[in-house]
Amino acid sequence: MTDTGRQAVAVGVLVSGNGTNLQSIIDRIESGELLARVACVISNKADAFALERARRHSIPAIHLDHRQHQNREAYDAALVDALKSHGVELVVLAGFMRILTPVIIDAFPNRIMNIHPALLPAFPGLHAQQQALDYGVKVSGCTVHFVDAGCDTGPIIIQAVVPVVEGDTEDSLSRRIHKEEHRIYPEAIQLYAKRRLTIEGRCVRIAPAD
Amino acid sequence: MTDTGRQAVAVGVLVSGNGTNLQSIIDRIESGELLARVACVISNKADAFALERARRHSIPAIHLDHRQHQNREAYDAALVDALKSHGVELVVLAGFMRILTPVIIDAFPNRIMNIHPALLPAFPGLHAQQQALDYGVKVSGCTVHFVDAGCDTGPIIIQAVVPVVEGDTEDSLSRRIHKEEHRIYPEAIQLYAKRRLTIEGRCVRIAPAD
Repeated sequence: MTDTGRQAVAVGVLVSGNGTNLQSIIDRIESGELLARVACVISNKADAFALERARRHSIPAIHLDHRQHQNREAYDAALVDALKSHGVELVVLAGFMRILTPVIIDAFPNRIMNIHPALLPAFPGLHAQQQALDYGVKVSGCTVHFVDAGCDTGPIIIQAVVPVVEGDTEDSLSRRIHKEEHRIYPEAIQLYAKRRLTIEGRCVRIAPAD
Repeated sequence: MTDTGRQAVAVGVLVSGNGTNLQSIIDRIESGELLARVACVISNKADAFALERARRHSIPAIHLDHRQHQNREAYDAALVDALKSHGVELVVLAGFMRILTPVIIDAFPNRIMNIHPALLPAFPGLHAQQQALDYGVKVSGCTVHFVDAGCDTGPIIIQAVVPVVEGDTEDSLSRRIHKEEHRIYPEAIQLYAKRRLTIEGRCVRIAPAD
């Protein structure tokens, strides 16, 4: 581990699927653009390809099966244990298809980030890209935000804009949004790592770079 | 009147105040960028500076006092009469601080446009810029849409994005959004004039340019 590595923010990434956002984070760390280290990757699904991505980069890859816990709170308590035992400071949700309870939200106050494929507060919840197409907006995008107790309601860190073009499908729009996700999620984590983020009310203030 | 003038779409502009969006439309017409003519400007306020702008460009400037009508429907019927008597095809709301009833909406089906200072469906209604600041979004903008019976819910024609920056106030954000309003409102009218807009469901399709 390099000297930078020792100072880097320990990130725990929660996943359920492919893990392309996880990959973009790993890539930015390895290129030196992001001052963080992935301390562990945890999936509620055993076959999530994100776990394989973690193993390929020698990152602890943990399967925590939600079906083996009595309720959401018990599962989240297990998540907290796993995250803390790996020294995680910042929790990053990267396609984690579970609703979080206060058990984990309170254990990491303003230290859980999520990315959502729309310009919140527009189109929260599932199928945001299809919601945007159905509404007929001409621009959409993605939002990195801190997680609070609501559904996609927490303080916004970065938003990126993506045009909706004639003939777009959920798939084509999602791909265009994904590209921006892979850019802004590492940026948001870097802002956190550089201690540039503060929360006032429900607004995230970004301090100037040194 | 030029030959172009005779073919141009007759626009009726409804205003209540300063009329900067009206001015941007007049300017684009006079520069030849917008194939339309302003057939009349109607204000519910006698002292709206927008009326003076109209007079300066020899455009019929009409004060229709809402207080002299028994109810919203009666007022809107008077509006429809005035618009039709001036041969208006497309109604353009430019800071018109009145809620429209079905009397006028049904008289100009999909032929009333409005501009809203946010990226709808986010922040409909009054004080959209302050709503955006209070929510803590990192991007906002403006939306030109056809008017339906809801509040800022109609089919979207064009949206323009404006960043929200550190230290923004309602005033500074409004000014940045206004610049984009003055650009996209004439563009939306030009798309209409060129017969490039069709509505499918609640989505506006834009045909390619010739």
